[in-house]
Amino acid sequence: MNSSKPDPSLNAESHTRTESAHIVQALSDGKNKRVRKLLGRMHPAKTAALLEMLDAEQRMALWQQIDPALEGRILSHLSLELIGQLAGDSADSTHARAEQQHPQSAVNHLEAVRAALGLKKLKRVGKILHRMHPAKIAGLLEALPPEERRSVWSMVDTERAGKVLTYLHDEIRIALALDLDIEDLIASAEHLELDDRVDLIQTLPGELGNKLLRASSASQRKQLESMLSYPEDSAGGLMNADVIQIRADVKVSTVLRYLRLLEKLPPQTDMLMVVDRKGHYQGSLRLSSLVTADLGRPVAELIDRDIAGIAVTSKNTDVARLFQDLDLLSAPVVDEHNRVIGRITVDDVVDLIREDSERALMQMAGLDDEADIFAPVLISSRRRAVWLGINLITAFTAAWVIGLFQATLEQLVALAVLMPIVASMGGIAGSQTLTLVIRGLALGQVQKGNIRILLNRELGISILNGLLWSVVIAALAVLWFGDWGIGAVLGAAILVNLLCAALAGWGIPLLLERMGIDPALAGSVILTTVTDVVGFFAFLGLATLLLL
Amino acid sequence: MNSSKPDPSLNAESHTRTESAHIVQALSDGKNKRVRKLLGRMHPAKTAALLEMLDAEQRMALWQQIDPALEGRILSHLSLELIGQLAGDSADSTHARAEQQHPQSAVNHLEAVRAALGLKKLKRVGKILHRMHPAKIAGLLEALPPEERRSVWSMVDTERAGKVLTYLHDEIRIALALDLDIEDLIASAEHLELDDRVDLIQTLPGELGNKLLRASSASQRKQLESMLSYPEDSAGGLMNADVIQIRADVKVSTVLRYLRLLEKLPPQTDMLMVVDRKGHYQGSLRLSSLVTADLGRPVAELIDRDIAGIAVTSKNTDVARLFQDLDLLSAPVVDEHNRVIGRITVDDVVDLIREDSERALMQMAGLDDEADIFAPVLISSRRRAVWLGINLITAFTAAWVIGLFQATLEQLVALAVLMPIVASMGGIAGSQTLTLVIRGLALGQVQKGNIRILLNRELGISILNGLLWSVVIAALAVLWFGDWGIGAVLGAAILVNLLCAALAGWGIPLLLERMGIDPALAGSVILTTVTDVVGFFAFLGLATLLLL
Repeated sequence: MNSSKPDPSLNAESHTRTESAHIVQALSDGKNKRVRKLLGRMHPAKTAALLEMLDAEQRMALWQQIDPALEGRILSHLSLELIGQLAGDSADSTHARAEQQHPQSAVNHLEAVRAALGLKKLKRVGKILHRMHPAKIAGLLEALPPEERRSVWSMVDTERAGKVLTYLHDEIRIALALDLDIEDLIASAEHLELDDRVDLIQTLPGELGNKLLRASSASQRKQLESMLSYPEDSAGGLMNADVIQIRADVKVSTVLRYLRLLEKLPPQTDMLMVVDRKGHYQGSLRLSSLVTADLGRPVAELIDRDIAGIAVTSKNTDVARLFQDLDLLSAPVVDEHNRVIGRITVDDVVDLIREDSERALMQMAGLDDEADIFAPVLISSRRRAVWLGINLITAFTAAWVIGLFQATLEQLVALAVLMPIVASMGGIAGSQTLTLVIRGLALGQVQKGNIRILLNRELGISILNGLLWSVVIAALAVLWFGDWGIGAVLGAAILVNLLCAALAGWGIPLLLERMGIDPALAGSVILTTVTDVVGFFAFLGLATLLLL
Repeated sequence: MNSSKPDPSLNAESHTRTESAHIVQALSDGKNKRVRKLLGRMHPAKTAALLEMLDAEQRMALWQQIDPALEGRILSHLSLELIGQLAGDSADSTHARAEQQHPQSAVNHLEAVRAALGLKKLKRVGKILHRMHPAKIAGLLEALPPEERRSVWSMVDTERAGKVLTYLHDEIRIALALDLDIEDLIASAEHLELDDRVDLIQTLPGELGNKLLRASSASQRKQLESMLSYPEDSAGGLMNADVIQIRADVKVSTVLRYLRLLEKLPPQTDMLMVVDRKGHYQGSLRLSSLVTADLGRPVAELIDRDIAGIAVTSKNTDVARLFQDLDLLSAPVVDEHNRVIGRITVDDVVDLIREDSERALMQMAGLDDEADIFAPVLISSRRRAVWLGINLITAFTAAWVIGLFQATLEQLVALAVLMPIVASMGGIAGSQTLTLVIRGLALGQVQKGNIRILLNRELGISILNGLLWSVVIAALAVLWFGDWGIGAVLGAAILVNLLCAALAGWGIPLLLERMGIDPALAGSVILTTVTDVVGFFAFLGLATLLLL
């Protein structure tokens, strides 16, 4: 940090000019954090002089960045009219009260902030942000279009910026992290738990991540590096190093004395890990049993051995399931020698579960769940274009099948009217089986041991529904076109397509899974291709054979 | 309970006969729990006699239900050949070892159990189940077809049956609960926490639920009734009554002494609730601060006031978000006077989040996430038929639109070949916007304050992609049919349909949400209707105007 006095080595005048120049520059770049930093080093009188220099808009913008504590001293140096202009801007405390009553309501946050932005009242934005939890601020930022997001972001105080970043989806997180000066980014990261910092480093572009890493204290860097060495989707990637280890041979009273010396336990601590002399995991001691046990009892008698150490290499989906099944709040992570090297806490598991389900939902539509829904139109368009392109292959394949039967269609145009029905019924029926199998695989309801049974069921269902709907649809077609032949062919085609749909909806996800492709991602496109092709081919093919 | 001796009032002979008759009956009903109960009251010699009476298959089935502890005494009464037959059946312990190494592996459970069932070795099944966590048993039961599920269920010991029920999806849970004798159901429910018992009572058919309720102790019934009085999807429905309340004016040492008197804290206890004399919520005292604080300090200095009491009426989705945002392990639930009436623990929130995401995924395909994937084919067929019927309306609407242009199609059959492309591109593009908005609404990214911005973006994206793909597709069509007119019309139609798709994908979920309908449920069907109708109408309409 510079001293708050101007540097004597060059004359004050020019110095102030350059200072002012920097401020104006930073202001026009929207780098409000930097503006506030520079203002902090400036004498109130100089700031006042600068305000006088600026045009009305710049002046109001600059005023929004001035520390309320200094406002008075600066106003005292200003001309009356300016005082009138600027002092008028006092933030309303009504929102503050509303805030107290409904801490959960995010809607009014968004509207209040956007209103304040509209009036260029960044001070008010700052006040609102100050009352919000980092998670809520993150939600607010995600709900704002990029430009507004940037200026709101510039009003988040550095101590909380890091926590806010951890709650953001990757794309927005990276953009806003890059928007910070590196020293601010480092400062904000210092307030983070190690596992959050690891997440941050992993999502940031390489060199920036490294800067963050190097900026941490030597001891922390060692921990961070070891945590970074594990794949993101493993227990190692989920774990935090803040484990409290105790020995089984000590008394409860000793443990309590030890904890009082620590003064503070890591967040989300519900149990202590019991280890032997070599750090091998023995079991866990819940705080709830610690506080209820007689002081004289040895830890050994209170150990909970039900909770096995999680291998650092286990997949995070298995970890999530384990937490759900055993209702865990935290669990130890052990290396290959069963030595405790960290712990996983349920809050990270909760995020994991939410993200996984989000991903499944988005992937079904070929969307990226980490993408910014307010990303520049051009970028989003390019992403979506890919999915449309893939679908185009499906569509043209279907069209090609129809093309094979142009001669038939020329003679019986009614077929053209009815053929979409065959394809769409197949698509719907197939997607039901597909979804059932995808979810069954995820929950472990569908396994090698029972896939055959499932197939038989699905085929049975498709036969029953096939018979039902082929009759109904055939009847409707006969009523419509007064032609029994068309009805018969339509019904038959639907029956065939529903059978194939069941088979495809069952087989595709199993096949993709075996190929290591996420069924939720590619499943529906492939299915549609099958049901379209089979549907059109069966309908038009049968018509060609039987009706001409 | 009867005494273990036969009732003297009637002669022992006939008594045994009736006893045996009951056993044989229960055995053929697959009511193994009852069989074991009856066997328990029988003298080994009598059991041996019964075994001699039975045919080989019944004999093996009965043997499977005999308590291993009694086997020896019963064998001693049997003829040598029978001893040979029965004693041969010793369960392998290899599985047990495998089990120890991979506690997560559920696959081998399913296969091992189904293998044992195939051999009618129910004892082995029982042994396997005994080593499994209730959650895993539930997973196993869901992965089994109904008949096998019933016989496995009959081998689950009563103490754990209740816990297993809580992990099951509603449909299976009800079926298996009904499969138990009422006294067994009551016995198994006694081992449950109150909130789990409430869940069970809520899912069971009315009169059975009431029986459970009446069976609980007076004090518990009072609590249960008050918990049952809140809607399932409210904080009241999520909460448990096992709160530990303390006063702010006492010392840490006093609290610790109090806790030692309790001897055991409720599961998932990470904090105590601090209340005033009237039970009004003041704040929370984390166990982690309790164990690190000096004994002399008053609780008042350690209170954490960040965690506000959750209103008993608040929606459970809001509760879930709160837990995620604040990384809570548990939180107090308060009534309208801010008196603590219960607490919510994170394990229930985790289940809630998982179920919600599952539901969204399943509803998109018109499936019920609580249904049994191995439900009788007839039942599943009926359920799915509804969805297919709804889709049929969509399909016929589309067909009707095409029907309007039969004359055009007769003259230009190429149109029939290409028209599915228009509809399918629209459907894909629309479903992307739809999914984005549905998820945005769920996460609060999409709100009144920013829906317009989102619409503009989506329209922008659809214009860019529309231009791109209409050109590509038009070009392909021209190459295929060598007709510029068709290409132009096709391109134009696709551009139009992509625009409408964006509009529909944006508007439909917002509309449904306002109407109180879950967008995930009805959204995609309505969207498809729109994109099909618009697609066919635009394409064939333009063709009629320009190409004839």
